[in-house]
Amino acid sequence: MVLSLIRNISWAPFAMNRKHKSPPKVFCVAYVAGSIDGRISESNRSKMHWTSKEDRNFFQKSLGKFDAVVTGHNTYRMAETRLKKRNTIVFTSKVNKPRLSGSVVFFNPRKSDFIKFIKNQNYKKLAILGGPKVYNFFLKNKILHELFVTIEPYVFTTGVPMFAGDKFKKYKFCLKSVKRLNKKGTLLLHYQYAN
Amino acid sequence: MVLSLIRNISWAPFAMNRKHKSPPKVFCVAYVAGSIDGRISESNRSKMHWTSKEDRNFFQKSLGKFDAVVTGHNTYRMAETRLKKRNTIVFTSKVNKPRLSGSVVFFNPRKSDFIKFIKNQNYKKLAILGGPKVYNFFLKNKILHELFVTIEPYVFTTGVPMFAGDKFKKYKFCLKSVKRLNKKGTLLLHYQYAN
Repeated sequence: MVLSLIRNISWAPFAMNRKHKSPPKVFCVAYVAGSIDGRISESNRSKMHWTSKEDRNFFQKSLGKFDAVVTGHNTYRMAETRLKKRNTIVFTSKVNKPRLSGSVVFFNPRKSDFIKFIKNQNYKKLAILGGPKVYNFFLKNKILHELFVTIEPYVFTTGVPMFAGDKFKKYKFCLKSVKRLNKKGTLLLHYQYAN
Repeated sequence: MVLSLIRNISWAPFAMNRKHKSPPKVFCVAYVAGSIDGRISESNRSKMHWTSKEDRNFFQKSLGKFDAVVTGHNTYRMAETRLKKRNTIVFTSKVNKPRLSGSVVFFNPRKSDFIKFIKNQNYKKLAILGGPKVYNFFLKNKILHELFVTIEPYVFTTGVPMFAGDKFKKYKFCLKSVKRLNKKGTLLLHYQYAN
């Protein structure tokens, strides 16, 4: 089912889905795990094994609800084995047009229209897994609807930031809930976009 | 009283206070207000008026408990009028030896021994108000005991990070409490250093 969805892609035109005069909106939810000081890893190529098992459990359970996940190329490489089994859209500048490999699509959002692609795929719910530029793409294009931020109780003082924008902006969110995941104090914050 | 304390500084030697064989430990608490993505302002020279009034109230009330506050030079300039009234230690590279101006001391931690200075002053409780390098100085020197982090419900995507270290480290903290300060979801997190 998962594979058949992705294989039905009609790559060539990326035409709007004509069945819907006003096509259903795609719902995008970002998942970010960071330190108290907003760092998500040491470098772009670090393996992401520093988060708590409680966060990993929450994250893995959450993904079941989505039609597809979106990651950057670095994030994809770190978790390739697991992501290969899902409908995964990998943002990369290394392709000029979408390239399909099993259930994974390598997609260049500078060269192809992402919104059209998503509508064409009939994807309703996307999980955005980062890194910073990918999160930023969704924010900038006003298609980031919810945000789950896990704050692990560390300060890193340097490293990769959660978001990498090219311009300071004040994107407003509204806090929906806070949950403490374990004794040491891993926090799960759930926000809704409010601009 | 406040002024007299700072005026009793014996600048010249910065000798250890010989009255105490094991002088009482100084207790340092950092206050940080940031966005969800760990940014504290647009630039080093931005005025810090973007935080909620609930956070500002909490912050102002908290400062009453401390013998002195510590800030960097940029942070000091942004809040000079208010800080002038307090015992304030301003970290700056622009002095070679401590320079006193009213209740404010301009202090170069690369040129003078900060721990000795604090002991000599008989300061027991310090509030650390940032910026990023100042917070980092206290972490690196293992004299950051508690941390209050206010998370305002915004994503900035760029700007000044909470901490500015020169090396990735995993400083552990333990969450003591979480408090929601207002309806939109400003959060106040209280951490204790746990390394």
